[in-house]
Amino acid sequence: MTRFDTVSLLTDYGTDDEFVGVVKCVLRDLAPHVTTIDLTHGVPPHNVTSGALALARSIAYVPSGVILAIVDPGVGTDRRAIAVEVAGGEGVLIGPDNGLLAPAVAMAGGAERAVELTNPEFQLQAPGATFAGRDVFAPAAAHICNGVELEELGQLIDPIGLLPGTMPLPQQEGDTVVAEVLWIDRFGNCQLNVNPDDLPESWGDQFSLEFPETRTTRHARRVHAFGQLAKGEVGLLVDSYGMFAVVVDQHSAADELHITNHARVNISKSDAPAPRPAPPTIPVSLGVRPDEPQA
Amino acid sequence: MTRFDTVSLLTDYGTDDEFVGVVKCVLRDLAPHVTTIDLTHGVPPHNVTSGALALARSIAYVPSGVILAIVDPGVGTDRRAIAVEVAGGEGVLIGPDNGLLAPAVAMAGGAERAVELTNPEFQLQAPGATFAGRDVFAPAAAHICNGVELEELGQLIDPIGLLPGTMPLPQQEGDTVVAEVLWIDRFGNCQLNVNPDDLPESWGDQFSLEFPETRTTRHARRVHAFGQLAKGEVGLLVDSYGMFAVVVDQHSAADELHITNHARVNISKSDAPAPRPAPPTIPVSLGVRPDEPQA
Amino acid sequence: MTRFDTVSLLTDYGTDDEFVGVVKCVLRDLAPHVTTIDLTHGVPPHNVTSGALALARSIAYVPSGVILAIVDPGVGTDRRAIAVEVAGGEGVLIGPDNGLLAPAVAMAGGAERAVELTNPEFQLQAPGATFAGRDVFAPAAAHICNGVELEELGQLIDPIGLLPGTMPLPQQEGDTVVAEVLWIDRFGNCQLNVNPDDLPESWGDQFSLEFPETRTTRHARRVHAFGQLAKGEVGLLVDSYGMFAVVVDQHSAADELHITNHARVNISKSDAPAPRPAPPTIPVSLGVRPDEPQA
Repeated sequence: MTRFDTVSLLTDYGTDDEFVGVVKCVLRDLAPHVTTIDLTHGVPPHNVTSGALALARSIAYVPSGVILAIVDPGVGTDRRAIAVEVAGGEGVLIGPDNGLLAPAVAMAGGAERAVELTNPEFQLQAPGATFAGRDVFAPAAAHICNGVELEELGQLIDPIGLLPGTMPLPQQEGDTVVAEVLWIDRFGNCQLNVNPDDLPESWGDQFSLEFPETRTTRHARRVHAFGQLAKGEVGLLVDSYGMFAVVVDQHSAADELHITNHARVNISKSDAPAPRPAPPTIPVSLGVRPDEPQA
Repeated sequence: MTRFDTVSLLTDYGTDDEFVGVVKCVLRDLAPHVTTIDLTHGVPPHNVTSGALALARSIAYVPSGVILAIVDPGVGTDRRAIAVEVAGGEGVLIGPDNGLLAPAVAMAGGAERAVELTNPEFQLQAPGATFAGRDVFAPAAAHICNGVELEELGQLIDPIGLLPGTMPLPQQEGDTVVAEVLWIDRFGNCQLNVNPDDLPESWGDQFSLEFPETRTTRHARRVHAFGQLAKGEVGLLVDSYGMFAVVVDQHSAADELHITNHARVNISKSDAPAPRPAPPTIPVSLGVRPDEPQA
Repeated sequence: MTRFDTVSLLTDYGTDDEFVGVVKCVLRDLAPHVTTIDLTHGVPPHNVTSGALALARSIAYVPSGVILAIVDPGVGTDRRAIAVEVAGGEGVLIGPDNGLLAPAVAMAGGAERAVELTNPEFQLQAPGATFAGRDVFAPAAAHICNGVELEELGQLIDPIGLLPGTMPLPQQEGDTVVAEVLWIDRFGNCQLNVNPDDLPESWGDQFSLEFPETRTTRHARRVHAFGQLAKGEVGLLVDSYGMFAVVVDQHSAADELHITNHARVNISKSDAPAPRPAPPTIPVSLGVRPDEPQA
């Protein structure tokens, strides 16, 4: 009797190599009834924090079944490989015990049972121990979909001992919210660790954004859609996950404001009216500087 | 009773973020019997024209079912979200009403019925209105696959009012066909808006290609396969979609001829025989120039 | 009666264009019961050798069914399109006869029967002959999954005449193994054409790696996991495919050692103890050179 028919995948494997393909081959071979969903394989290599955030953003939408998440710089060391049951058994998250799963597990209501994947009967043997996705995690996912009990895959462990994830929280310093860029998406929108409670409506719609790393300050207006912004205007918009993002309509806010991931942003309310967006820059011929020798 | 079991997807979401994955989660959750096909998620961000062309190139091959196409710079504004029925009900295209769907709808025989997706009962509620793919379009696709009638999803609208797409047509100016580059593919082949009727066989096989933007002119030969070209020779080849493309065998014509998307190309017949392709460049030691001071 | 329900795909099509999507549309249209697995579409354009290696690394894990592999610079010429049966009929490999399939066929036990795909009844007609994936290979895959016999697709051919693949072998020159980089993966690990028999345990764990192209020599230590390496230390590690790879923990060995694909590596045993890893480089202010005019 099968238990699940969906495995949702999130890795830092990329798709230029055949890693993801081989993981799916193992799943197909062991559990042919399963459909896979690629959440993403574009997590930056070894970046556990970015992977954990992407998984946390997805978890509310992931269908019942197994979630296979692999960002695993410690592969082959004594970091544990784990499976964690959540939501009354509606979901099982599988991956390394390095904080990658923790925020999603918390958002799914917390770990109910957890097991360390130590039973070699449910693993593939391989010449080198560097591809746990293929040899440990995918077989575990397939066997769970096939109805194998969690405790057959290895030793039950206390969920309290799982490595927690870390999510930076915004700080309130006087009239300023000290925020951090959590995620820059394909469109250059910069999600902050700030939610609507942190910037109440009573603060109005005009804000000043200070970026200490690049020593720049920009005016931003609170809007509800990209299209409300004038050309070149900077917006603060509650995005589809309920967090504020720094955005520019139809352009990359990251490129235009030179924002990088994890950048700090100091947000304060602004009493100044929104400035008119700057006109397009006009190329100017530079004259000869007075102190420069003449040819 | 289910109506369709395939949803074909085309977006500008890329795959480095989890956007596509979350859309598939929603589909899987609401219509678990559906199989998805990724046409592509690599449409350049916000580029409605490129998306419309990719969809038009694909449409003749897409199986019966729903096509979910999202390139949506106006998300959250008053642009309409629509579903369009084509081909006697064999297909339903879903996406924004911004011209993205129009060329494919026309190639499928025209819109038969259309609806604006306004019924909140068939949408997901979300904190921000920036991810219509997840909250509006994917649920509509799933419900249509489940057999929900088009008119339940919102207000029926007159297809005549849908925003048309724009396809640049080649111009005949004397003996010259003024063409435009429509698409540069991964291999650097440059598809033109020129079909075999525009360059009749009576013109022969030798052509002159003038690129006004880069002020260059190249000789090109009409061929039927890349392998007919000598090393470095430029070819005009009817591609797999029936359009002429500027190509170089096993190399990127775009790179070698510095061709960019939307570039203009003036094509005229050439009486000159094809020149011998240039030999590979030979590195030459530069001698000391006469006016250069000696060390 | 259907024969197979899985088609595994490997191409150099990338996913920014809709090529892979259209191939899957054809498969879905002709054989709707089939599930597809993407091994990878990130093979570098036209690179038959890289494609053959990726397919060979995957083949042991690919489930029973059809393997559709397309890296096809000779499309439209007289190179043959073929289907090759292996493993007592458990698998059929389809692709161009240019060496792409050969290593995988050999690893699957050798070709049992082969056919040239010449029967137009099992192909799609198209204006141009440049997209054999859509018009020749995908239909053949679908029809084979549907139970069509190999010999209906065209002329049976002698497998002995198929183009072999080429795999560079390491050379033993005195105490040195002359190796080649076969593959650089997303993480910058550099797989060599060297297996454990070539570097027996009796040689110890300390090696000297000489890279003739860049005229550099680095000390490397044999390890079993990335995490055994100190920060910045170079490792030789038997990877998940049983081949040695040059690695650096949590960093790209390719970037740090300036290794490119196909680079030569001379490996010899080293009696010297492992050096302490170099400290992080310290920026140094350059003084004014004596022969430089003073401001």
